[in-house]
Amino acid sequence: MNVILFDAREIAAAIRLDAADRRALHIGSVLRAQPGDEVRVGIIGGRLGHATVKHVGTDVSLEDVVLDADPPPPLPVTLLLALPRPKVLNRVIASVTSLGVKRIHILNSWRVEKSYWKSPKLEPSNLRAQCLAGLEQAGDTILPEIVLHRFFRELVEREVDAIAGDSLRLVAHPRDAGECPRGVAGPVTLAIGPEGGFIDAEIESLRAKKFSAVRIGPRVLRVETAVAALVGRIA
Amino acid sequence: MNVILFDAREIAAAIRLDAADRRALHIGSVLRAQPGDEVRVGIIGGRLGHATVKHVGTDVSLEDVVLDADPPPPLPVTLLLALPRPKVLNRVIASVTSLGVKRIHILNSWRVEKSYWKSPKLEPSNLRAQCLAGLEQAGDTILPEIVLHRFFRELVEREVDAIAGDSLRLVAHPRDAGECPRGVAGPVTLAIGPEGGFIDAEIESLRAKKFSAVRIGPRVLRVETAVAALVGRIA
Repeated sequence: MNVILFDAREIAAAIRLDAADRRALHIGSVLRAQPGDEVRVGIIGGRLGHATVKHVGTDVSLEDVVLDADPPPPLPVTLLLALPRPKVLNRVIASVTSLGVKRIHILNSWRVEKSYWKSPKLEPSNLRAQCLAGLEQAGDTILPEIVLHRFFRELVEREVDAIAGDSLRLVAHPRDAGECPRGVAGPVTLAIGPEGGFIDAEIESLRAKKFSAVRIGPRVLRVETAVAALVGRIA
Repeated sequence: MNVILFDAREIAAAIRLDAADRRALHIGSVLRAQPGDEVRVGIIGGRLGHATVKHVGTDVSLEDVVLDADPPPPLPVTLLLALPRPKVLNRVIASVTSLGVKRIHILNSWRVEKSYWKSPKLEPSNLRAQCLAGLEQAGDTILPEIVLHRFFRELVEREVDAIAGDSLRLVAHPRDAGECPRGVAGPVTLAIGPEGGFIDAEIESLRAKKFSAVRIGPRVLRVETAVAALVGRIA
């Protein structure tokens, strides 16, 4: 946790955190903060700054909240991500958020098991918790927007043009693909398939919508590793 | 598992895998292979190819092993990685291996908790298992070499010149750092600190050994995400 985030309505001249609040646990047990210490804070959707620890005990209180900095600029990358296994989803969402991606579209694909769509990990409260973890890691405050698309065809045929707009459209694919471009100046829409990749028909549908197939080296990467490597390359 | 790996001494005209062998479970339960199907195989440290499934039941047997391809070329990146939390170590080693890194030096740093060095996850058998998981993911056969360095000073003062040689020396650091270079042509030695980063004195020691401090954007990333993003940028 590189920043402690609050809802706007929690911010007051002094903030009291209940002992069970994970932020209180962080301040007390991880930072081992003492009265008078400064901690980095931010408002979800707003500014960053710092606050002074007033009291650490069974509860924690902060005072002198100063919000004097803007969050880092968003990364101009829109992600179209085939729904990963529930076990992997949390890590991927937190990781992608930490990289600064603000638009995440989770989509279906032939190789996504139907049961994944019933996972409680897709509930808004869980997705929000993972995004917050990513923001707290990165030192950011702006939550990404996450949209779920249950049907691949509907997304690609009816919605993808509105989502991708004028951005450079790329789909990560291990075969018949060019090397991923470096340091792209403008916005990018990046599609990443499930384990095992998009099937040929899906790649063709995406190509028909002006997505270029790209890869990063000759190796097949896990979704998490691929997203970070591609974003590192493109951004 | 995008390739099923064998020790050279396991390779014969026909290969029989015990029911409890995780490779047999993969062929039977994940691939749901039938007799006559081809599976991708490789020899650890050697070539890649394919084999034909002869029998799938309580055990699995393969025949007609053909090794007709070289593994992908190694990534010319040497990693100096501050020992992560044991919980994170396995994932980082597998991820770094899947990216094609072949030289991993795990080092101490001020912010590495001493207890981490006693973790059973540092035993050679566990490190090898994580490397194999990375190779199986990537479709590669060449195990990385992993060296443990218990003392930061000793490593930086006496060993780092031999390790880094003529390569471009970079240290990932969130403050007072330039943007990480893109698409570096030659070999790179990349140092990555612990959670919370290297302390200033450590950064100074590395700068004295010609390491340039670099960052990738304004956000603080987890080790796993940072390694993949930096390797994606550099390679």
